[in-house]
Amino acid sequence: MHEFEIINKYFSKLSPNNKSSLNLNDDVFFDRTKKLVISVDTYVEGVHFINFKNPDLVIKKIIRSSISDLICKGVIPRYYFISGSGDKNSFSKKNLTKITKSLKQEQRKYLIDICGGDTVFSKKLSFTIISLGFSKKIVFRNKAKLNDDIYVTGNLGDSFIGLSILKKKINLDKNLIRYFKKKYYCPDLQIKLSQKLLSFANTSIDISDGLITDLEKMINKQKLSYNLYLKDIPVSKNLKRLIDLKIIKKISSISHGDDYQILFTASPSKSRIIEKTSRSLGIKVSKIGKICNHYQKSQIFDEKNEIIDLKSKGYFHKF
Amino acid sequence: MHEFEIINKYFSKLSPNNKSSLNLNDDVFFDRTKKLVISVDTYVEGVHFINFKNPDLVIKKIIRSSISDLICKGVIPRYYFISGSGDKNSFSKKNLTKITKSLKQEQRKYLIDICGGDTVFSKKLSFTIISLGFSKKIVFRNKAKLNDDIYVTGNLGDSFIGLSILKKKINLDKNLIRYFKKKYYCPDLQIKLSQKLLSFANTSIDISDGLITDLEKMINKQKLSYNLYLKDIPVSKNLKRLIDLKIIKKISSISHGDDYQILFTASPSKSRIIEKTSRSLGIKVSKIGKICNHYQKSQIFDEKNEIIDLKSKGYFHKF
Repeated sequence: MHEFEIINKYFSKLSPNNKSSLNLNDDVFFDRTKKLVISVDTYVEGVHFINFKNPDLVIKKIIRSSISDLICKGVIPRYYFISGSGDKNSFSKKNLTKITKSLKQEQRKYLIDICGGDTVFSKKLSFTIISLGFSKKIVFRNKAKLNDDIYVTGNLGDSFIGLSILKKKINLDKNLIRYFKKKYYCPDLQIKLSQKLLSFANTSIDISDGLITDLEKMINKQKLSYNLYLKDIPVSKNLKRLIDLKIIKKISSISHGDDYQILFTASPSKSRIIEKTSRSLGIKVSKIGKICNHYQKSQIFDEKNEIIDLKSKGYFHKF
Repeated sequence: MHEFEIINKYFSKLSPNNKSSLNLNDDVFFDRTKKLVISVDTYVEGVHFINFKNPDLVIKKIIRSSISDLICKGVIPRYYFISGSGDKNSFSKKNLTKITKSLKQEQRKYLIDICGGDTVFSKKLSFTIISLGFSKKIVFRNKAKLNDDIYVTGNLGDSFIGLSILKKKINLDKNLIRYFKKKYYCPDLQIKLSQKLLSFANTSIDISDGLITDLEKMINKQKLSYNLYLKDIPVSKNLKRLIDLKIIKKISSISHGDDYQILFTASPSKSRIIEKTSRSLGIKVSKIGKICNHYQKSQIFDEKNEIIDLKSKGYFHKF
């Protein structure tokens, strides 16, 4: 049985009447009275990260991935807890020094403090990270409204190229390798935008599984559909070069996740304030589509305004 | 490297300046401003529990052991998170049903709610439980005062007999086996006394490692010593029978932990209020010793008022 199923089938039954909280299959747990927001994630070697050859980078990535769950909901992370299971090689003195150094750097960068940590010896390496924040309000999932604009922060797709390089699926010149690997391991979290979201976003999620998968998750319990415009989906200059050289298709590059950008919807009336906020913070925010009614199918339009057939495997090739 | 050392040596360096919190090597994490108290514990098969033949009972034990950390500090537990690492047999449908049922029972008994849970597949079975509560104040460790009385709740030692039965070190009649095993798996937590502690206890800890070990932990950073009186240490009628039959020595039975009773110290002036509270709640609270200055050695007096030599191995035999 897959982990996700276990949580859904068994543990989520345990909290059906706990109204102050979200159901366990949402991104975060929220106690409205205590203003407490908690995110819990487990990262397994070979599944969520390739290997532990760069413990410093893996640690940064999983910390960012965890606090990203709070940031995308409008919540500033305050504390984190880290639990590691692994063998003696994974937790050698050399690795522990690197892990601690990375944690210290992330603590300084995101102003978070450790509230606990432990390690258990196990043959399979995994980490559980718990992030905590305090907030009166959060932006929920499944709260999109008909005619909402769909927005995304930053650029998408760089991280997937980084992962493909690490998996030796593609090779590029040194500078590009450094650029994309950095984007994979150290995604740029939009923490400055986080609390602003509360004033204009109807619903939000962070992109961990891929734009389309996460968009569908964000509105999955709602009778709604979406139109997305590929030309409006933001990519970096470096990724654009790869797309222009036909090394990868744009739709494929933005569908594989690990971006940790914020995907949200907002009423068209919020368009100006969003633009203003984006400019004043110096954070790229792109309008990439529209929430539509459920009588039509969700659609993605390519540069020629033609509908992309998502079932065509070519669009999702992983090199 | 032992887990405890890893936490101390590496992770605890990460929070030296975080003044709102306790250091990571205390029992709980406390954010005074947010009134948040967190306890984190990892339980490994073969170390913290013998095996997983009774998943329902193991789950109850580890949940109680985790919330006990808050209860002994004067904090009512409110939420818990459970993360399990194990193989497919450990998380079979049958076991998951039992785990969920036990969690539901503990939720009802202690009025706690799950705030998250996950499972990772691993060859070695372990659980991490995080308990959260909210409190303006907590009873800290290392705050005993000279001349304080030393108190303990409930009875000690039953749990160790239960463990010894499970390990097939001793055999008793059926009723006694049932009694002691229950005490091992389902320790009676003194939740009703918890918040009262804030008004009279100077320092406190729960007994997980054994009366003497935990007493020394409770005052380890203080220049203090203690006198304990073996005759005043409370044991159940059933354990008293075993002691009278010379199946086990009293000092040995109360030195092995897993009791989850509350050990605390209080000024002699609080003696009456403690007695009154104990009577009104129907919770046994026994005065078992005294906090002394550090010029004398810590001492335990036996029934004949003779000093017990703790270095004599006989006192700590494990059958």
